[in-house]
Formats: sequence, structure tokens, C-alpha cells
Amino acid sequence: MIKRVPKFYGNVKINNRLPTYELLSKLNIVSHPSSGFVNWSSIGLLIEHKISNLIRKHLNSIHGEEVKLSLISNKELWERTGRWENTEIFKLDNDKLLVPTSEEQITDHVDKNLKSYKELPILLYQINTKFRNEKRPRGGLLRGKEFLMNDGYSFDIDEKNAMKSYNSIVEAYHKIFTDLRVPYIKANADSGDIGGDLSHEWHYIDKTGEDLVFTCDSCGNISNIEKTLSIGESQYDVDVKYFTTNDRNTLICAYYPKGRILEPKFIKSELELPEDLIETTDLTEFSDISKRVIRIMDSRLTSRSNFPDFPIDFVNRSLITTLTDIPIVLAQEGETCHECEEGKLNSSPAIEVGHTFYLGDKYSKPMNCKIDIPEGNKTKSVNLMMGCYGIGISRIIAAIAEINRDEQGLRWPSIISPWNITIVSKDHYDFIKTLDFDYRLDDRDENFSKKINLSNSLGIPLIVILGRSFPICEIEIRGKLYSQSWKEQYPKLKDKYQWTVNNGKHFVHKDGLTSIVNILLNDM
Amino acid sequence: MIKRVPKFYGNVKINNRLPTYELLSKLNIVSHPSSGFVNWSSIGLLIEHKISNLIRKHLNSIHGEEVKLSLISNKELWERTGRWENTEIFKLDNDKLLVPTSEEQITDHVDKNLKSYKELPILLYQINTKFRNEKRPRGGLLRGKEFLMNDGYSFDIDEKNAMKSYNSIVEAYHKIFTDLRVPYIKANADSGDIGGDLSHEWHYIDKTGEDLVFTCDSCGNISNIEKTLSIGESQYDVDVKYFTTNDRNTLICAYYPKGRILEPKFIKSELELPEDLIETTDLTEFSDISKRVIRIMDSRLTSRSNFPDFPIDFVNRSLITTLTDIPIVLAQEGETCHECEEGKLNSSPAIEVGHTFYLGDKYSKPMNCKIDIPEGNKTKSVNLMMGCYGIGISRIIAAIAEINRDEQGLRWPSIISPWNITIVSKDHYDFIKTLDFDYRLDDRDENFSKKINLSNSLGIPLIVILGRSFPICEIEIRGKLYSQSWKEQYPKLKDKYQWTVNNGKHFVHKDGLTSIVNILLNDM
Repeated sequence: MIKRVPKFYGNVKINNRLPTYELLSKLNIVSHPSSGFVNWSSIGLLIEHKISNLIRKHLNSIHGEEVKLSLISNKELWERTGRWENTEIFKLDNDKLLVPTSEEQITDHVDKNLKSYKELPILLYQINTKFRNEKRPRGGLLRGKEFLMNDGYSFDIDEKNAMKSYNSIVEAYHKIFTDLRVPYIKANADSGDIGGDLSHEWHYIDKTGEDLVFTCDSCGNISNIEKTLSIGESQYDVDVKYFTTNDRNTLICAYYPKGRILEPKFIKSELELPEDLIETTDLTEFSDISKRVIRIMDSRLTSRSNFPDFPIDFVNRSLITTLTDIPIVLAQEGETCHECEEGKLNSSPAIEVGHTFYLGDKYSKPMNCKIDIPEGNKTKSVNLMMGCYGIGISRIIAAIAEINRDEQGLRWPSIISPWNITIVSKDHYDFIKTLDFDYRLDDRDENFSKKINLSNSLGIPLIVILGRSFPICEIEIRGKLYSQSWKEQYPKLKDKYQWTVNNGKHFVHKDGLTSIVNILLNDM
Repeated sequence: MIKRVPKFYGNVKINNRLPTYELLSKLNIVSHPSSGFVNWSSIGLLIEHKISNLIRKHLNSIHGEEVKLSLISNKELWERTGRWENTEIFKLDNDKLLVPTSEEQITDHVDKNLKSYKELPILLYQINTKFRNEKRPRGGLLRGKEFLMNDGYSFDIDEKNAMKSYNSIVEAYHKIFTDLRVPYIKANADSGDIGGDLSHEWHYIDKTGEDLVFTCDSCGNISNIEKTLSIGESQYDVDVKYFTTNDRNTLICAYYPKGRILEPKFIKSELELPEDLIETTDLTEFSDISKRVIRIMDSRLTSRSNFPDFPIDFVNRSLITTLTDIPIVLAQEGETCHECEEGKLNSSPAIEVGHTFYLGDKYSKPMNCKIDIPEGNKTKSVNLMMGCYGIGISRIIAAIAEINRDEQGLRWPSIISPWNITIVSKDHYDFIKTLDFDYRLDDRDENFSKKINLSNSLGIPLIVILGRSFPICEIEIRGKLYSQSWKEQYPKLKDKYQWTVNNGKHFVHKDGLTSIVNILLNDM
């Protein structure tokens, strides 16, 4: 059977100034029936299936098992973890929601099915649609209300084993992102809403990115701005903000250089507080003798800095703890790395495409997901230790489209291109029938150069033209060459297959076509 | 890499009296977080992926293109076709819905993307989750609020071409259901809510089925009870029901044998009425001279039957049309087929697993989905002629589980079994690594016969035991043998591979294992 280009493939005029999300719609890869929602056309779905299968391959190789939990979850489950009140969730009939992520469901699923600690470790993953009632959907696939996600969850007997699972996922992610060819970074990250102690973000560096990532030019440490501690020059002018803990028993006075951005998470982490800090301006209650006061001073401040007066009169100064030399503001380009205390920090905007979290018992505890383990000749019941892991499939597609596009249009790495080769021909059907690489034939009644332009703007890595010189086939390269290993093969095979290269175009006898396109795709 | 049985595979005690939907949950194929919703475990998902890929193969071979439209659709689209008011739809935020089927979306998608009539015919299909706010969800996967569906839609230039598309889908469905091995029937069906003139249902015959299908023992005509016309013995006692048309200008008096079930659709179809009939008891307004009256008499009634008095006094009897000899009640077992007027009708309960509809312009018209076609040296604009087609993936799994189960548990046809072969062994890993058929190794620390029972209850077609007689491998057959073609291969290969059969068990040298399991699976 001959495979032809899809029906809605054609006649698109590319405009270099189109934003990438409009380009993706114009090229009929996705469309948006309303803001934030997505229709995947056949071309888009081919890309999506390839990314999904790549993810499956690497997660299966570390014994991940794919599951598909209901897209609708019950209020009761989400109340247990306190996440029902999240405003970015689509609620249904007041007692159900459209799932934005599956920690609650999967913990419940494991709790109901796990029979023995001997079944651990367990790694379950999904590849399916998720929903988020995003108030400001942006850029088509980049921040949608409906998106495709690969989410994984690991369950272990204790922290040591959970870290092993975490690290095996990290290894698999490295393989996935390496196979995708586009350069990526793994950054230390804040755990945010999902929780847990340790997390990494997986980013593509790109000027359109909404995240900001710092890289140290000496130790190579990479971290999200929300996780980057830095050392800067001392500063005279001081600003202050006041916070209380949740129980309102402690007042925290945070002093920081004027003009910089204070990051309360840094304070929370330094003080090892379980809850978020609450900013406050009303300090009257803190003149009470039973309250504790912590003064925390950013490391850029010195004794010579111009501190404001302390706004409360105290009976007992011994209630005040003072911490100095703590970095509590967001890093800036050119400051010194806090990790190695040597290198300079360089910032880059980045698009987050993956996130790995070590969760510990953050979900297993409120959901009471426990298992009996032997201890001496008794057993004891322990909470499972979890990790959760996510790759944004929609986002990867949007990000790679953005990063690789040029004045001609898109350029897909071959591993995820909708198909690898467009064959332009109105003849030679018997030969085409024998081909078993990933091609689509364009034999439509259309202008020749229009067909080539269209394949190029859609980002198909190679075009094969079967024309007047047949059995010599012409190969035009559109995809990005990430390596040049075809050049090693060339001397060995050029005579055998009448392989010549002229002006960037390759010519090869039909008997060598499959070999040569595979060699070229290997670099793309 | 060695593939092992999934983590939550194990230790299930089968009870012969369990309803099949409970068996599917007990065996951890699916579970239901609440009534009507579904979690697919890894075992269930393996089955689902196999059915989906089988469907893809056959639909791609007739040039179908897979798409994935948003799971959320807008009120505006559904108001155009008058389907927004359907009570079985999950509404979201009063202006969106969770899609139960995609006629509106896909027609909109085609309308926005189709550039020329030359691109026709177009066949698009999806394999994804659908939602229905089913008031009485039943039997797990059989009638759920959330279900997996393959829905296809064809678009053509005119009725003749649309029928070609319809027939090519029918051919593909025959191939899909044939590959699934379980005997099926294709029945003439009523188009119901979806609409259109022609439709067929695809059924599995089973005592638990909610549909009733009649087969003629002479002409072989098969049809759903809602579409089965029959000839029965004449009857004396008469019942009557009154209907009006939507405009209330026509009264229809339907006379039928007492004790039988009147089917208004038969009247509607006979009278070629566009709208459904409305049953009425208040006849006062029909004594008006401007109204029309139709008396329709079931073919089982004769002039000797005991008709009730006509309840209205008329000025002019010429306004009354009388139609006789029309079958207007549901068929009964043993009556004569209306198609051939010879055979007897036999009824069977059936589970509907597919439905094909010829839609014509039912959706393209209200949605104004048109294309210009040449006419002489001008063009004219025509509505696309559509068909829609559905296979219930969740339902097929539930139905096959129901039909094939026995006292030991489930029995999957090999083409959709979660895996084909369970290998029971605690050794021979180097050999197992070389195998490239679809196996899972069970080398857990468990009782030997427990492992065999479990694989059998889960319905894996074959078990291969690598035990003390290795390199002789023992093969136990659990799956249903739909054919016996292995017996043709046996004489040719028995010496080569030391293949022996004893008491239903097969024994074969390891070098022949792959060949012999493939031969056996070919019958399963």
C-alpha cells in the first residue's frame, strides 16, 4: 500500500513574522476550537504518537508500567490532600473534577492494589490528556487548558529506595531528551505546589521562555531563578518586609537590598518552615512578650548598610534572633554562584518541558497509603515514599517548533517528524510500493516547487524526488543536521550506490535509496 | 531486556458466580473509581492498545487519517444541530460540554480545512475517551459514563460517493471483527438519534445482551428488533393508539393486535414523516374539517377483526385515508420474515459493539459545510454528504470477556490478549532474553500452580513452562482454538523440533519454541 500525504496538507503560505503557535495552526498541525483547547490534526497526531512511543520505550526499559486512570476524579480524594480548593481546576457537577495531574488517583490506585512490600518498587505512568482551568491560556500548545502529558509516579519502601527510583527516572529522561536531539538542560528547581524536597526541571533554552535559569560558568550548577542563591556586592540602601508564620507566633523581619526582589521561599527554606510565610503590615500584636521575632538579613547587607528603625518597642530583646549573611533575594546576571563561591552566574530564558519531584510521604500520608514491612520477627506499617515525574508532550512540540523554526518554516528532529521523507513523484509507483521507510508520497496535481516548499515549511527532514534521472533519486535535506556522521559512510558507499553530493543535494541510485536516507536521518 | 508480568498481577481467587464486570475488576484489568468511570490498569491498557492498533491498521488501509479533537466542545456548535439540550451530556461551565461523539466538531474541522472538492473523499477517525452522563451506568465497561471509542467520519461530494465510503468502512469493519475471531453479526438497524437513512449495527450474540436481533432462517436477513418487519397470523382483538404530527394537522390512528408492542418508528417510516410522532389522547381538535386523518392497520388485522368504534364524528369522510396490511408492531420469535416472505424469524439477545450510519447532509446542512464543485463552466456549492462510524473499544473488551469466559476465568483471542504467552520459570534467563514473541515472564517467588492458575484466569492464550526437562519446553493451551491448522504443520515439524503432544499439552525443543507458539497462536 502506498502512503500518501494527508488530506489537509497543502497550499499554506508561510509568513516569517507569524508567531510559532499561529504557524502550527496554519500548517494544520493543531487548531484551537477555543482559547486553550486543542484539536490535533492527523499531522499533529503523528508527531504526538512518535514522542509518546519514545517516552514509552525509555520508561518501559526501567520497568515502568503504563496505566490510564479516569479523566474524572472525585472531590473526596482531593479534599484529603487539600487540593480541591485549587482555583485552576475544572469542576464538574460540584463533586468531580477534570484531572490536572494524578497524584491522588494513583496513590489511591496503588493503595487498593498493592498486596506486599515485595512488589515494590512500582513505577506507573500515563500518557493522556490533562486539564487546567488556566486563566490566561497562552501561545497555543505552550500553556493550554487541555494538554497532553506523560506523568509518572514511583512508590518505594523508604527514602533510599525512592531516591534510586528518582535517579532511574532521571536517567530515562536524559535518554528521552538526548534522543530528541534538541539541546536541553536539567536545573535544580523549587518544588512549588506539588511539594517534596528535591526536584529538577528539564528545560529548553529559548528567548521566548517564561522561566529564567542561571548557569554557573565555573562549577556548572544550573538552577531555576526560584532556586538560585547568589553572592553579590554589598549594598547600602535597605528595604524590609515583614512575615508571620501560619500560627502567628513568630514574626520574621526580612532586610534586603533596595531595588532587588525578595524571595520568601529562600527564607522559608533557610528557617526550615513547613508552611508558606504570610506577608504582613500590621505588627501591633508582636509587641506581646510571648511572640518570637526573627530578623534575617540578606548577605549583600553589612553592618554599614542603612537599616530602618525597628518598628516595635520590646520589653525583652532576648526574644529576637538575628540571622545574617543569608541570600534571600533573586539572583542577578553576573553575580557569584553560591554553590562554588567562584563562578559567575549567567541567566537564560527557558521553556520548561519536564519536571521530576521527590515527594516523600507528602501524598501517601494524608491518603494513608501504607504497607507492612518486616522488622525483626514482627511487621510494621510504613507510608510509601513517592516521586512524581512529568513530561509535557504538547509543550515539547510547541518548544521544538519554536526553537528549530527558520524563515522557511518548521524543522522537526527526525525521531518526531510527522513522517521522515516526502517523496515527490507522479510515477514509479511499483518502486515506491517496495519502500519501507517512513515516507509519504505527494503525487497530487500540484506545482512541483509548491510541493517542495510545503514539505519544507512543514519541517519534514528529507525530500526525495523521483524525476527524469530515475533510477537516480535526488535527496534534498531540510532537517537540521545535528551530526555529520554520514560523511564517514560516504567514501565507503559512494561507488556502490552511485552516491554523489552536489550543492547540498544528494543523488543516489534507487537500490541505495533506503541505505542512504537512513544514514542521513541518523544525523537529523 | 526481560519482560516480566505486571506488578499488580497476582493472587486473585476466581469465583465462577462473579458477574463479568466484577471479574474484570478482580483481575485488575479495569477498576471503577466511581460508578461509570474507569481506571485502566496496565493489563487492561495492553488489551486496549492492541484493539486500537488493529483498528488503526484496517482504517489506515482504506486511507483513514487519525485525528484527536478536543475533549471539550462549545455550546455554540451543538446548538446549531439542536443537540445541546440532550440530557445525557456532561455540561461544563454552562457553555461547554465533554464530548459524547464528534459529528459537530469534525464537520466544523472539515469545513475550516477543506480547500477543494478534489481532496474528497475524506475519512477521519479518532480513538479516544468519550463521555456520556448515563443515568444508569451498568456492568462496568458495558455502559459507562466514560468510555473508549473509535469514531470515524466520512465526507463526500454526493450520495453515490458517500455510499462508496460507507461500503469501504463496512469492509474494514468486517476485517476488524474477523481478526477479533469472536463470531459477530451485522444487522440492519434504526438510525435513532444520530440520524440518517441507512445504518447497520455490529453485534456479538450473547445471552446478556440488551439488544434483540432477528435472523431469517431462509433469506438470512439480520436486523435489530427496531428494524424488523414481520408477517404474523391474523388476529381478532384490536388495540388502537392515536398520534399527531408535529404541526398537529394530521391525526394518525394506529390499529394493531392486542397484546403486541406497537412501534411508532414503523409508522413514521411507512408514512415518510420527517419528524417523530406524538402520542395523543385528546382528539377533540380533530373533528375540525381542515384536519387530515390517517387510519393505519397492522397487517395481522383483517376485515373480520374486532375494530373499536371511531371516536370522532366527522362531517366529511373523504378526509380519512385508510392504509392496511402494514407491519407496525415489533416482530416475535417464529413469525415470518417480511423481506423474503418465506423464512421464520429467530431472535437472539445481542451486545452492540459497532454502528455504521449513512448521514447524508444531516450535519453538513445545519453546520453549513459546503464545497464548490464544477457544473458546466460554472461552479455550484453543495453540502458534503457524510457517514459516521463507531466501534466501542471498552464494550468489545467487556463483551469478549463475557462471551469467552468459563469456569477458570477469561479467555482472550490472541490478537488482543494482554500478552500472548506467560513463561513460568526461575531460570534460563539467557534463553528467555533471546525470545522475541509477546511474552511475560513470571519468575516471582510463588507457588508454581498458582502462577499457572493466575495466567489461565487472566486469559493468556499460552503458558510455556521451562522446567526440569529443559531444553524441552512445555506449552499449555488456555486460549480458545478457533481453528485447528496447527495439525497441518505438526507432521512436517514434529521431528525437526522434537514436537510431541500429550494430553492436550505440547512439548517442543527450545530451538522450535518460537515457531510452534506462533503456529498455535495462529489458531487462537
